[in-house]
Formats: sequence, C-alpha cells, structure tokens
Amino acid sequence: MNQYKLLKTLCEIHAPAGDEANMKSFLLNYVAKHQKDWKVKPQVYQGKDFQDAIVLAFGKPRTAVFAHMDSIGFTVRYQNQLIPIGGPDVETGYALKGEDSLGFIKCELEVNEENQLFYKFGRGIDRGTSLTFECDFRDTKEYIQSCYLDNRLGIYNCLKLAETLENGMIVFSCWEEHGGGSVPVIAKFMFEEFNIRQALISDITWVTEGVEHGKGVAISMRDRNVPRQSFIRKIIQLAEESGITYQLEVESGGSSDGRELQQSPYPIDWCFVGAPEDNVHSPNEIVHKKDITSMLSLYQYLMEKL
Amino acid sequence: MNQYKLLKTLCEIHAPAGDEANMKSFLLNYVAKHQKDWKVKPQVYQGKDFQDAIVLAFGKPRTAVFAHMDSIGFTVRYQNQLIPIGGPDVETGYALKGEDSLGFIKCELEVNEENQLFYKFGRGIDRGTSLTFECDFRDTKEYIQSCYLDNRLGIYNCLKLAETLENGMIVFSCWEEHGGGSVPVIAKFMFEEFNIRQALISDITWVTEGVEHGKGVAISMRDRNVPRQSFIRKIIQLAEESGITYQLEVESGGSSDGRELQQSPYPIDWCFVGAPEDNVHSPNEIVHKKDITSMLSLYQYLMEKL
Amino acid sequence: MNQYKLLKTLCEIHAPAGDEANMKSFLLNYVAKHQKDWKVKPQVYQGKDFQDAIVLAFGKPRTAVFAHMDSIGFTVRYQNQLIPIGGPDVETGYALKGEDSLGFIKCELEVNEENQLFYKFGRGIDRGTSLTFECDFRDTKEYIQSCYLDNRLGIYNCLKLAETLENGMIVFSCWEEHGGGSVPVIAKFMFEEFNIRQALISDITWVTEGVEHGKGVAISMRDRNVPRQSFIRKIIQLAEESGITYQLEVESGGSSDGRELQQSPYPIDWCFVGAPEDNVHSPNEIVHKKDITSMLSLYQYLMEKL
Repeated sequence: MNQYKLLKTLCEIHAPAGDEANMKSFLLNYVAKHQKDWKVKPQVYQGKDFQDAIVLAFGKPRTAVFAHMDSIGFTVRYQNQLIPIGGPDVETGYALKGEDSLGFIKCELEVNEENQLFYKFGRGIDRGTSLTFECDFRDTKEYIQSCYLDNRLGIYNCLKLAETLENGMIVFSCWEEHGGGSVPVIAKFMFEEFNIRQALISDITWVTEGVEHGKGVAISMRDRNVPRQSFIRKIIQLAEESGITYQLEVESGGSSDGRELQQSPYPIDWCFVGAPEDNVHSPNEIVHKKDITSMLSLYQYLMEKL
Repeated sequence: MNQYKLLKTLCEIHAPAGDEANMKSFLLNYVAKHQKDWKVKPQVYQGKDFQDAIVLAFGKPRTAVFAHMDSIGFTVRYQNQLIPIGGPDVETGYALKGEDSLGFIKCELEVNEENQLFYKFGRGIDRGTSLTFECDFRDTKEYIQSCYLDNRLGIYNCLKLAETLENGMIVFSCWEEHGGGSVPVIAKFMFEEFNIRQALISDITWVTEGVEHGKGVAISMRDRNVPRQSFIRKIIQLAEESGITYQLEVESGGSSDGRELQQSPYPIDWCFVGAPEDNVHSPNEIVHKKDITSMLSLYQYLMEKL
Repeated sequence: MNQYKLLKTLCEIHAPAGDEANMKSFLLNYVAKHQKDWKVKPQVYQGKDFQDAIVLAFGKPRTAVFAHMDSIGFTVRYQNQLIPIGGPDVETGYALKGEDSLGFIKCELEVNEENQLFYKFGRGIDRGTSLTFECDFRDTKEYIQSCYLDNRLGIYNCLKLAETLENGMIVFSCWEEHGGGSVPVIAKFMFEEFNIRQALISDITWVTEGVEHGKGVAISMRDRNVPRQSFIRKIIQLAEESGITYQLEVESGGSSDGRELQQSPYPIDWCFVGAPEDNVHSPNEIVHKKDITSMLSLYQYLMEKL
C-alpha cells in the first residue's frame, strides 16, 4: 500500500472551518477501525461536550498534541460572490468543489481587479454553501504536493503517532483557520480532567529564508505569540539530544492553536513543531518528505521524554 | 396604547457601552412590573455576580437569547475633543446628549477634515463624560426610524418574547459595541448552572444587496465568525417549517455577542437572528415593521422547537 | 541608601515578554528577604500553577493590584534580523543587551528605511535570542529617566505598597507587552480562591496634551477598553476624598492587564492607576518624581478604602 494513501484521503475531505463534520466522521471511523493495531487503545472523547472536536487519551497523558481538522475555503454570498473562510490564496482558475441542495458542485474561482471573489458555474449555488479546493494530490520522489497539507499533514502525523503512543493526548480541533473556538473547550477539559500542562502544535509552517525544504521539522520559537521561552528551550534541548534533524523558526507573524492555549485561563505551555511548506493556503502546498519523516520522529521522541 | 411606545422609551435611554446602569434599572423595573402578566414568571439573576448584565430564566431553559443593552456613543476627552465608544456613524450636526457634574447636556457633534471629533456646546464638559445620540423616534406606516434600534429592538424583541416564553433564558448583556466583557461571565453561568448549549443572538443587522427591508428577519449564516454550520442548518430548517418569512445572510464582516460565545470554553452553538436596518449606527437607523414582526414570530417558534 | 536604587535594579533586569524568569527570581528573593520588615507577611503563590507569574496575598484581600514583569524587546530572527517583542520605539544606535550560547552580548540596533530591524555586532547571535535595551538610569532632581520604567515602576510601586499593606493582593504578571496570557490564569485564581472582584492596574501611561508631568498619578477613565464606569467613578471619588494630587486620563487607544480582566469570565471591575511618562517604550522613558510619590500614596489610600 502506498505510504501516503491516508494523507491523500485526508486532503480530499471537505471540512472548512465551521463545518468539520465530515472530517470528524472520517476520524472516528478511522480510530474505531485501526486502534486494535495500536500499542495502546485510547479513550475517545467526542460528542456534545466537544462540538465537532475529538480527543484521544492514551495511557496517562502528560502532553497534548493539537492538530486542527479544518481547512481554509470559501462561502457563497449573494449572486455569484464568494467570501473567504480563513485566508486562502486566490487565483482565477483554481478548481473548487462543494455541495448544495441541488447536488455536487465543481466550479472555478474568479478574482477581479479589486480582489473580489466569484465562482463560475453553470447554475446559481445556495447561499451559505461552503466550497473548498479540488484536491490534486501529487506524490513525487521527494515531495508531497496538494491542497490542505495544512493541516491534513498535522492530522496524518497524529494518526501515525497514535500507532505507538503509550502516554499522551491527541486533540483534533476545529475552526483554527478562521479564528478559533474549540481549543478553549479542550484546554479546560485537558487541564481539569487530566491536569495536562504541556502542548505541542502539530501543524504546518512556512518555507522562508530561514526554514528550508528538507532540512527537518521546524521548531517555532515564536510567531505572533511568544510562548514561554523556558519551555521552548526544553523542546530544543530534547530535539538536540534526539539526533533528529530539525530547524529553528523565528517569526513575528502567523498563529496556530497555540494562540488560544496562550490566552486560556490554564497554565499550559505550548510549542509549535511542524514541517514547513511552500505555496501556503493554495491548491499547490508542497512539503518535503524528509520533513514529514522528521516531524513524526520528533513527536515520537518528545511524547516519550516530555 | 401605541404598539411601539416601549421601543421608543428604550431608544431614549442613555446607556453607552461601559455605562449600562440606566438600562439595567429600567429593565429590572419593567420585569418587576410586567412579569405578573407573563405566562411564566422568570427567575431574575443580577447584581455583583453579573456586573450590569441581567439574566432571566423561564421554566427549564434549553436555549439562551442574547440582547445587548449598550449602544455606541462618545466619550469627552480633553478640551472639546470626543472619542468614539464602539463604531458610531459621524456627521457634523448630529445632536448629542449626556450629563456631567454641572447638569444635563444637549450639544452638537462636529467632524473635521481629518475625521477628528469635537462637541459644540456653550461650556466645557467634564472629562470622561459619555454622550449618546439625541433620540428622534419616527413611527411611520411601514417603518420605525430612530437612533439605537441596534440594539433596543433586540431588547424589545426579548421583552415581547418574555410574555409567552415557557422554557428559555433571556440575557441582557453589556459592552457589545466596544469589545465585549459580559458574555464570558454569562456563558460560564448558563452552562455551569443550566447546562445550556444553544444561543440565539437577538440583535440588528444590515440591509445589503442580499438582505432587504420587509423581506423578513435575517438568519445570519456567518459574519466575521463562522458558527457551527450544523446548528445554522438546524435553525434554517426550523424557520422553513415555521412558514415565517425570513432571509439568509452571509457576510465576511460584522460581529455580535456570538463572537464571545464562539471563543468561550463552553460548547455553546449560536446563531444570529435579527431584523435588518439601514443607516447603521447613525441617529437615523431604520427597520421595516414587517421584519420586527417576523423576528418576534421566529423567536417564539424557535424557542419552542429548539 | 539612594531612594531609587531598587528601581534602578529593576530596570536593569533582562525580562522581555515570554522570558520573565529573571524577574521572577529577583522578586521571589526580594520578597523572601524583605517581608520580615513588612506590616503583614504575605502568602506567596508561584510555581507550575502560575507559569512565571507571582501572587502575594496579604490578610483578607478585597482588591488585587496588577503589575506586569515583562518589557518590550527584540528577538533575533535569521542573519542579523530582529523582530519586535511588543511595540518598542526603534532608532538606529540604541544599545541592546542579551545572552546566547556564546556569552553576553552588547550590540546596537539598526533601522533601515523600510523600518526593518537589524543588530550590529561582531559575530552572529543565536536564533531566537532575546535582546533588551541597555539600561542608562538617570536620577535627577525632579525626574527619573531610564528604559523600562514601563513597568518596573509599576513593580516598584507594588513593592513599596507591600511594606504597609494589610489586606490586598499583589500580582506580578507576564506577557503584557506582547498580547497577554497570564492574567486569565490569575483572574481565575483570585476570583475562585479569594472571591476578589476589584482590580487596580499598577502600570505606566503616556504624557499627552491632557496628562502632564508632575500633575499627579493618572486615573484612566478608559483606553482601548471601557471599564465599568460606575467603578471608575468610585475610584475618582475616593481619590478626591484622599486629597492626593491626581489627573484624569481619557484615551481611545492603549491597553493594559485590564484588557484581559475585562474579557475574563469573572465579574471583576478594574481601573488603571499609574504615573505618566514621556518617550514611551524607548531607552529614555521619563517620569516625574512627584507622580511616583502620588502614585504610591493613592494606592495606599485606595487599598484601604476599596
């Protein structure tokens, strides 16, 4: 079986921020089916107390890993207008998909000179319908290229981590791309029920002048938020000890599920640890396979040592 | 008695964000006086645990309705300068009112070319004094026009809803126009004490190319925030079943008390349901009477069915 | 002993937002050493439940005073690039200090025409290293001038207040300059454990056309946030009764630890009370000594009367 078949399936799922139900179903089915092959069978928390989020608790968890289920996308407004969900890259001709009362939709994005967004389709689409990028998954020798590697790769990393995880929590969160809303609920749960004070953000970051393809998973020392630096230094020291290839990232912008942990009323330290991609938030997000491998290895090491 | 006399009284009350005490007194008196005629007498929660907010619990509530008590306005800075409370529409000549240590104030707004704000009055006004629009309430055949229909109409809707409400919570919140602060307190209360997971936002939205005067109450599928779409679809389905006239709204901007419910650490779904107005945040806000009627009818239906 | 020696020591401590550990150590040592001379020995709360924040509880506290420990600063990005921590004033030639794996650093800030930031130093500095202003503490007849009077003067005020405080809480918070994170944790603690509903923000504000050097501590009626005005009026009335010189501030911008109290799920009223400074967030912040004295006197009075 192709190693990245699962990742391809994840990238194809329609689950923009606010409408993560498809991804939730997929993940609950996946866990139900595969947990028998995992080292430890997790306790699954989901349902009305978690909206569309899912929490898996393995053994005696000390650290939680967050991977957001949602993607960027578009909402149909009036006439043929679109408005963004999160911050998608936009270019005339991008292929979009969705579904409304009249059936499945495959249409095209149009961007005019004032950067207003429209769809091009043979019929009108129901108000409020969400559209996402049509998935063109490209598995080459060195790279994976597709829409939504941010953050289906973060989820993939968690599902692979789950296979051998003995003690730890895995959180599949919602709404990350559009301003949050499920991390506060889960921060409360993980602190009050499990007394967890450490979190890793399994998400995808940017290739920049300082973070390159194939140089290993990025440990972000800060982005728009500045996490507690003593915790960051601890992560870096463990990464150093592990022998796994990694890169250090330092940015003034960007954000993740870490933002809401930072602002929560619980003393939870967090660090973003994720592979870098280019062509961010476009249908052509691209990640080096070495960085995917390095990401999983580092998570396996950190979850044992932290 | 004129049907909209109560609404006129509400529009005249001086209660800018951060200074809702007048509105609180009025509402507590109103509830004390009228609850004997209501189908169910509510439990009233107010006082030091709620700052200036008020909560009414009827029967066994499953859904909470939020209406914010505060309005936009102005604060006197230094000399004759004004700074905004929330995002008021500004135009030279708008009539303002307030009160300081020297007595009642009726003055005029001045806007210079750099969009700086000043008051024009025969004397200096105490630093920090808040000013609001002078109310010119116009009740015509088809429309109500006045300052502060946003959100005195949302409150009016709640007070009318209260007359027949059997099971439900009504929340009068503070600070909505200027960045919030009371919804988090109430979200905690309603979830922890009543286990409420559903909320409707009784507030006023915008007339746009997609939402028109007289076409019924607007159900907002999203604004700056994207609420959980499965809940939105449930509301739309109920609206459809009810036979009440309504419109669907889809916006990328704008916000309401829903924002703080979205961000709260409780799994509360929310949906904005409110009549549309034109001349937003000006002394001349205007709403079609049919939309006021449709709003109340839909709230009555939803509170029974949800 | 020079009266302001303690303040000078505080200003010299390297503790940018996210890296407050040095300040935490200093304060814990200071409290341990000096509390024997204080009127009441406080209960000290710190450690894993508070990250790097510290809480001192004296007697039966009714009001909490917040002073943030962190300062603005810079993070080393890639090559010789710097990115800001908080909102520092920037000018080529400002002296910076820090420490990385190769040892202590004294370097210079460079600002190019696009307002990008760089350091000028004889060697490369480790990625993620934080730099702060080199302290040039100037104690003249009427003024104190130094970097980081914001907010080491707020901390100084608390340490002086601690000498005679009988009932009250003093909070040393983190992250204020860069977007917060520790106030939510402490708001929860102070409300749930001590039922405290009143807070004063011991921080430094701006000299403006309405707030002048030497005219007394500023009571801020509002900034970006509008605190509950009934509480503000109570503070002003007490200040009036006290006979202590003070000024009223009214601003549309600026923020403090009060912001997170405002947004917290606890009904906590707050008021910013602090001396004004000029040359904000630069190495040359300057405060009038009369305003430092007035600030402490008003805190002593308010903590007794509130």
